[in-house]
Order: sequence, then C-alpha cells, then structure tokens
Amino acid sequence: MNTRIVLAKRPVGWVDESCFAIEECPEPIVGAQDVLVEAIYLSTDPYLRGRMDAGTSYAPGFAIGEPVVSRVVGRVVASKHERFKAGDFVWGFLDWSLRSVARRGEGLHKIDASLGRISHFISALGMPGLTAWVGAVEIGKPLPGDTVYISSAAGTVGQLAAQFAKRCGARVVGSAGSDEKVAFVRERCGLDAAFNYRTVAIDDALREHCPKGIDVYFDNVGGGSLEAALRHANIGARFPVCGMISAYNEVDDPGIKGLQALLWKRITMTGFIIYDHVHKLAAYQTRVAPWLRSGELRFHEDIVRGIENAPAAFVGMMKGEAVGKRLVQVSDE
Amino acid sequence: MNTRIVLAKRPVGWVDESCFAIEECPEPIVGAQDVLVEAIYLSTDPYLRGRMDAGTSYAPGFAIGEPVVSRVVGRVVASKHERFKAGDFVWGFLDWSLRSVARRGEGLHKIDASLGRISHFISALGMPGLTAWVGAVEIGKPLPGDTVYISSAAGTVGQLAAQFAKRCGARVVGSAGSDEKVAFVRERCGLDAAFNYRTVAIDDALREHCPKGIDVYFDNVGGGSLEAALRHANIGARFPVCGMISAYNEVDDPGIKGLQALLWKRITMTGFIIYDHVHKLAAYQTRVAPWLRSGELRFHEDIVRGIENAPAAFVGMMKGEAVGKRLVQVSDE
Repeated sequence: MNTRIVLAKRPVGWVDESCFAIEECPEPIVGAQDVLVEAIYLSTDPYLRGRMDAGTSYAPGFAIGEPVVSRVVGRVVASKHERFKAGDFVWGFLDWSLRSVARRGEGLHKIDASLGRISHFISALGMPGLTAWVGAVEIGKPLPGDTVYISSAAGTVGQLAAQFAKRCGARVVGSAGSDEKVAFVRERCGLDAAFNYRTVAIDDALREHCPKGIDVYFDNVGGGSLEAALRHANIGARFPVCGMISAYNEVDDPGIKGLQALLWKRITMTGFIIYDHVHKLAAYQTRVAPWLRSGELRFHEDIVRGIENAPAAFVGMMKGEAVGKRLVQVSDE
Repeated sequence: MNTRIVLAKRPVGWVDESCFAIEECPEPIVGAQDVLVEAIYLSTDPYLRGRMDAGTSYAPGFAIGEPVVSRVVGRVVASKHERFKAGDFVWGFLDWSLRSVARRGEGLHKIDASLGRISHFISALGMPGLTAWVGAVEIGKPLPGDTVYISSAAGTVGQLAAQFAKRCGARVVGSAGSDEKVAFVRERCGLDAAFNYRTVAIDDALREHCPKGIDVYFDNVGGGSLEAALRHANIGARFPVCGMISAYNEVDDPGIKGLQALLWKRITMTGFIIYDHVHKLAAYQTRVAPWLRSGELRFHEDIVRGIENAPAAFVGMMKGEAVGKRLVQVSDE
C-alpha cells in the first residue's frame, strides 16, 4: 500500500490541518512510458494556498479528495520511459504521496547531483531560485548604492533575492515575522538591516533602515508591506511583484491604499510568474551552483520529517513559523 | 490694474468655486531680463486639484492667497530678455492672471505658430499630447489586434491616446462620463467602442466591448475603472498609469482591490510623469503636427471665455462636464 495527502475540504480564510486528510491508497500502476517515483522531499509553498481554492488564481484548484501536488524531489524506482532509469534523481510536480507515477515521464526533470544538493533543485537551484533572480536582478535592476527592501526575507525566495541584490552592490533591508528570522537574515544571509514586522511598525522600520528611500521593493506579501513601500519609495522605483501571500487568505480583499504614489513617483510594478522564464533555468543553475558550493551564497532549509506531518508543516509555514525553505522529507536520500 | 484668480482656501474632497477668489491686483513689474505676457488661453487640468492641497502630490501645493498657476498660452507684450520680443506667442506655467511676468524668461517657450494652432501647444502639440504618446505608445506598446481600454477617453490626454493606439492597429475602447462624450469619442475620435461609466456597470461594458480581454489599460482615473481593468486584463497586459483623478478627491482612500491580478496575469503597471520626457517634445511635435493639419488626428477643445469664469470652468471640468480639452480664453489671439 501507498500513503498520500489529499485535500479534504477547501479552506475559508486561513488554512488549517482539517483541510487535509492522510490516507492509504493502492500502489500506482506503471503503464507504458510511465515513471514510478519514490518521493524524498515535498515542497511547501505559499502559492499552494491559492490552489486549495476552486480556481481563481493562476493555476487550477485541486479537486476535493484528490492529492495535493507540489514540487517533489525523488528517486526513480521503476521506469518504462527511455529518458529515465531506476536510481535517477528527479524533480517534478507530483502528488504528496510516498510513491507516484509521472505519466509518460511528463513534467519530470532529471537532477544532476554533481551540481549541488538534490533538495536544492526545488529551491536554490530550481524555480524558486530563478524566481529570486528574475525578480531581484532582472526586474528590480538594483544598482550599486540602491536600497532594496524585501518582504518575507527569510523565505525561500526572499533569502535568495536578498543575496542576489547584495551581489549587485545594493543595500538590502528585509522584513520577517519573528525575531529568529530577523537574526537569520542578518547573520546568515548578510542583509544590511532587517526587522520583525509583527513587533515594529513597518513605516518606522523603513524610515530607520532605508534613510535614502527604497529603489527596489521585492514584494512577496502585498498588503501593508506594499502600502508602506509605496510611501517610502524613491522616484523611479521598481516593484517586482512575486507574491501577495497576505491576500491569499483574505476572503474580503481590503485593497491597497496609496497606489497613487505609482504615478507621482514613476514607479513600475511588475507582476511575474516564473513559468514564463523556465527557459532560463539551465543558465541560472550554471551561474549559481558554484556560489552555493563555495558558500558565498547561503541557503537555509527547514526540514520536517514524515509524510504524516506534511499538512502541519504547510499550515505552519503559511503562519510564518518556517525559517528558510520548508521541506517535508518522506524518505531517505 | 490687472486681474487674477487666487486660491482662497484648500478644498476638502470635491473642489468648488469657493476655493477660488478673483481679485484686482497691480500690474506686474518688469525687471531686468523679465518678459511680460498677456494671457490668451489658461489650461484647466485635473492635476491642479492635487496642487490645491498642501503638497502631498508630485508638485508643491499652491499657497493660500497666491495665484493658481497652470499652462498658459499668451503673447509677449514687453520683453527685457534677448530670446523674446513683443508679439511672440509663448507658453509656460504662468499665473491665472490677465498679465503676468516670466522672471528672466524662465520656463517660457516660444510657439512656432506655423506648426499648428497656438492653443494646441498646451494640448495636442504640447505636454498633454506627449503624455498620450508616451503612455499609449511607448509604455502601452499596443500591437495590431490588441485591445486597448482608455478611461477618460474624451479628455485631453484620452482622446489623443485613443487615436495613437488606433494608429498602432489596436482595437480601442473608451469610457467617459456622459452620453455626449461617448458619442464624441465614437464619432469624432474613431474609437471602436465606448461606454458611459455612469450609466452602465464597467464590468458589463468591458465584457461586451473587450471580448478578447484587455492588453493595454491607459489609466487616467484609478478607482473602480482600474479594478475592472485588472479583472479583464489579459496575461502580459501593460497598464500605463497617467492619472488617478478619482483618488485626488478622496479624503479617505478606499484602496484598489484585486491587485493580486498583477501577479498571476503578469501585468506591468507603470506610473509616469511627463516632465521626465520633456526632451522628446520637439520630435513629438514634428511627428504629430502634420496629422493635426491633415485632419487624420482630431483634437477637440472646449473653450470657456472670460477669466472670471475660470474657477467654474475648472470645477466643471473636474466634475466631468468638459468634452475635450477645456481652456479658458481670457483675451483674443
């Protein structure tokens, strides 16, 4: 028998564990061209919250009673596909299930374990890392001396975006939701300043830590953080919009106030979704893998063990308890 | 004696005529290098509402008891400056006054009346026209077959932006605040469709008139129009933000809902202010003047006569009663 996590019901507002169920299920059937994958790491990501709704976001909603799907790193157990063989490390969008099948190998990517840690292929060496690069560097265009403000700076994308902006010569200021995360981004990720948005007023913190104003705001959260960034932005500021996690939980969207600042400060806000940039992934991996190996780029993972703990791990991450990338390890490497 | 319009008090919410006073004042003194200008046309513009506040917008606020200042077309009456001589047509940011002085000729621009109508140098051949060009063409980047939605389509900038987008091969849909304006933009400016946002729901109108969604939203108003445009935008849409007139009057900004669409639709919103693009004005005039002369570009002015009527003309324009560019003519050409 196999074990999987399914969507039991759709959340209203904040997600809790009752939205999920763990169940035994039959072993998947491996048909022609199929690849059977044993999961090692399941990724927990804020965007999954949107997919728990009926389908208003950019990806279709999960069906009730069907498995949650996210990025998964695993090992090929059996393959009827010419591109994969047993023992290969792979990643893909797979079920939250101990074993699952990639039909005809579709959406499955081989991992070159010589480049880096296999878990990094769904974080620092994967699409989240590319997200940080595209947002912080390509859209944000930080110049030496610019001030870059990053919300969710301790998150998967945030900690990478902050370090990429530092490499561009910017002063980087981050916000996070606990003193532990603030210490983490200051001490481990090398941010110039950071603050806990739960204990200080964002406006006060930005006034203190961004005395020359904000040139780039890397938005992971929307809401009050975005409103404060609009107030403290400099003329010509760039706002790459990577996530609006605060709004994913809002049954009644309160709206963003002060958007008129876009006009008189000539701000450009650019929403982006990393699927549009997939073609850049190999070049990104080649660029960044040596930095990870040498330690000049730091990446912190927060690993929870056991598939039965995946719902709590996800809910906790949405509440802000994870420092760094939260993974659920469901079997050994 | 001279006559001028001064700011009597700051408006709270909607502006009314009591915010202005008309007064007699001494003839201006023409010092060394100064230029004395007799005003012919005073421009009424939505952004002036922002300058009636104490100074929260991108331009400093007018002082109480001091003249309103806007773009003015006039004739040089006396000049102690080598670049100007009596009889020259000029435009500049001058007092709402029958006669005023440009100190040392600063900010005064000569008008080449052979290019077009002198009043057009503060509208279709001036900065408002360049605003339409930069927003609709340079930032909006409409492609043939794209759908462009323009709010305030009957306004100074709107009617030009709409026609520039048409020249790019786009389908252009406009909104305006009266049936008269809707007829004007359909019949005179050649828009493909237009609707009166006061009598139909914007969502219904966009569903009907933009069946393929919106690729470019030229935002002159913010508010509900922007929210509807976010709902109907296509992936990769561009939103040049030229004005948020609806918010200039909001004592309590209600915020913009649904901004998360920026993210999943990969929308770029770009606020711009035309002062950053002044260097393009001569090239713009050279490009557009022949279109105005040939009649392939239409521009409609709504001219109110008499300096004493300037406050009512401005208040009425803010309420939406002007069709096309509202000017106050205070003397003959």
